[in-house]
Amino acid sequence: MVSPEEVQLAEEPVPSPGPGQALVRVRWLSIDPTIRGWMNDAPGYLPPIRVGEVIRSIGLGEVVASHTDRYRIGDLVVGMTGWQDYVLADGKRSMQLVPPGIDAPAALGVLGATGITAYFGMLEVGGLRAGDTVVVSGAAGAVGSVAGQIARLNGSARVVGIAGTPDKCAWLVDELGFTAAIDYRREVVPDRLRAECPGGIDLYFDNVGGAILDACLGLLALRGRVVLCGAISGYNDSHRAPGPANYVNLLIQRGRMEGFIILDYVSRFPEAQAALAGWVAAGEVRHAEQIVDGLERAPEALNMLFTGGNTGKLLVRL
Amino acid sequence: MVSPEEVQLAEEPVPSPGPGQALVRVRWLSIDPTIRGWMNDAPGYLPPIRVGEVIRSIGLGEVVASHTDRYRIGDLVVGMTGWQDYVLADGKRSMQLVPPGIDAPAALGVLGATGITAYFGMLEVGGLRAGDTVVVSGAAGAVGSVAGQIARLNGSARVVGIAGTPDKCAWLVDELGFTAAIDYRREVVPDRLRAECPGGIDLYFDNVGGAILDACLGLLALRGRVVLCGAISGYNDSHRAPGPANYVNLLIQRGRMEGFIILDYVSRFPEAQAALAGWVAAGEVRHAEQIVDGLERAPEALNMLFTGGNTGKLLVRL
Repeated sequence: MVSPEEVQLAEEPVPSPGPGQALVRVRWLSIDPTIRGWMNDAPGYLPPIRVGEVIRSIGLGEVVASHTDRYRIGDLVVGMTGWQDYVLADGKRSMQLVPPGIDAPAALGVLGATGITAYFGMLEVGGLRAGDTVVVSGAAGAVGSVAGQIARLNGSARVVGIAGTPDKCAWLVDELGFTAAIDYRREVVPDRLRAECPGGIDLYFDNVGGAILDACLGLLALRGRVVLCGAISGYNDSHRAPGPANYVNLLIQRGRMEGFIILDYVSRFPEAQAALAGWVAAGEVRHAEQIVDGLERAPEALNMLFTGGNTGKLLVRL
Repeated sequence: MVSPEEVQLAEEPVPSPGPGQALVRVRWLSIDPTIRGWMNDAPGYLPPIRVGEVIRSIGLGEVVASHTDRYRIGDLVVGMTGWQDYVLADGKRSMQLVPPGIDAPAALGVLGATGITAYFGMLEVGGLRAGDTVVVSGAAGAVGSVAGQIARLNGSARVVGIAGTPDKCAWLVDELGFTAAIDYRREVVPDRLRAECPGGIDLYFDNVGGAILDACLGLLALRGRVVLCGAISGYNDSHRAPGPANYVNLLIQRGRMEGFIILDYVSRFPEAQAALAGWVAAGEVRHAEQIVDGLERAPEALNMLFTGGNTGKLLVRL
């Protein structure tokens, strides 16, 4: 877990935008499990955050000064703002304009990196097929809640969510249309999975790793697919936990386990955003946001991800 | 390990072929790790061998009596003969004719199930690409030795084999043209792998599972692929060993781990056999066979697979 000694508030003068730069007042931070991974001094898909650097984070801000035609004062932009009040947007650190009519939480959540991750993970990496029995872990989280609804809308026969409280499970079934939900803290996950997936699991969308990944591998159906989107159960471990013993089922069932990162799909983001915006507008994909107020509470918000404290997209409002 | 109490010799009258049947005198048995899996009372890709049944096995025999146009006396046939001297071939238990000019060990090995497994595993499941750094475990075994040569012939930049004796390692490099070989009993596998694969591993062809699978996952290159062909290190365990902790590298590197069984490729066997026969005839794929004489020694031969006792294809000659 992140402690106050490790992430400290510091004051500096607000930077002045030079030629080609704009000054962005950061309004919202997207709190994502991957930030915890960036804090490890270990190889990853991006370099680690070094000691003394601003914590890397996606955020949304408003342009308050500009010396470039690319950004006008008042524009809302999304990008790697970091955990800070002001950031310069320029060629090196480019920001995407938020189209009019999109509210900030949605731009960072269901229509942003979160929703896009769910979209490509479920449809491209997972190769969702009609009639599939789908299981999603971290199902009440920002990615999982959207991933399960995308499965429901695209021909799956059953969508089973795994989450950590009775309230979250009720939300998945009653509000989001999941077929069933399993409370992993109060129920025996393999037993419930066996009951809810009588023909085995065709597609498992994994956000957590650990024992739940192992249980799902143990119930994999013929030519089942495991989409590795995250492994949140292990992000705070100083040593890697044992891997899933049931990986051998990939052999018996001719299954596939595959990891992905949405940075590989940048050129196709508009496709995902258009689909998601359509589903949201039609009420077919619902989304929730949980808001924590104050930059100084960003570390506390990050820790909430690992204690199951959030439902839906977790944001810090500055 | 298989003990004499578990597999016993029994005598029965030689069966008489009825209408539509042929009697096959079994001459050779193919000794494969998968037989050990079939002996477990656990779900698999085929039902377990039940107590009292003949041990299931691929074999090669000669037709000695026939009441069907499908087989003539003197034909050599390959199929599921089981560990026995005689078997009936009929509609239920069909056998494939061995083309003239193919010797029996090759028909069961490099041109049979073994070579076909290597072919589809390396080229289809593994999706071998030009310039790939390839690692093969169980590399001196029947499948691994052919898989590595197929990689060498199809554009890989490096082929590193992992085997269990200095003699096997020398054979891989000097005779089969592997780039390097690692003796897993005498060397530190992760250190040698790091040295031999400076850009990481693009394709790992896994026959063994366990610590070697974990080491290869730990060195996976971007978009690396792991082909699960076997997990021989665990076939004699009564409990499943922990899985590979480094599976999380599949996420970081956008990798893929996939299992397969050649039964899924039956319709394409001729393609693989034609390619393999061409390579063998041109001297581009070399193969070795190790022969154990006597039906009564089949259990002993099976155990050899798990102690590293064989180089190349292991056969029992009746």
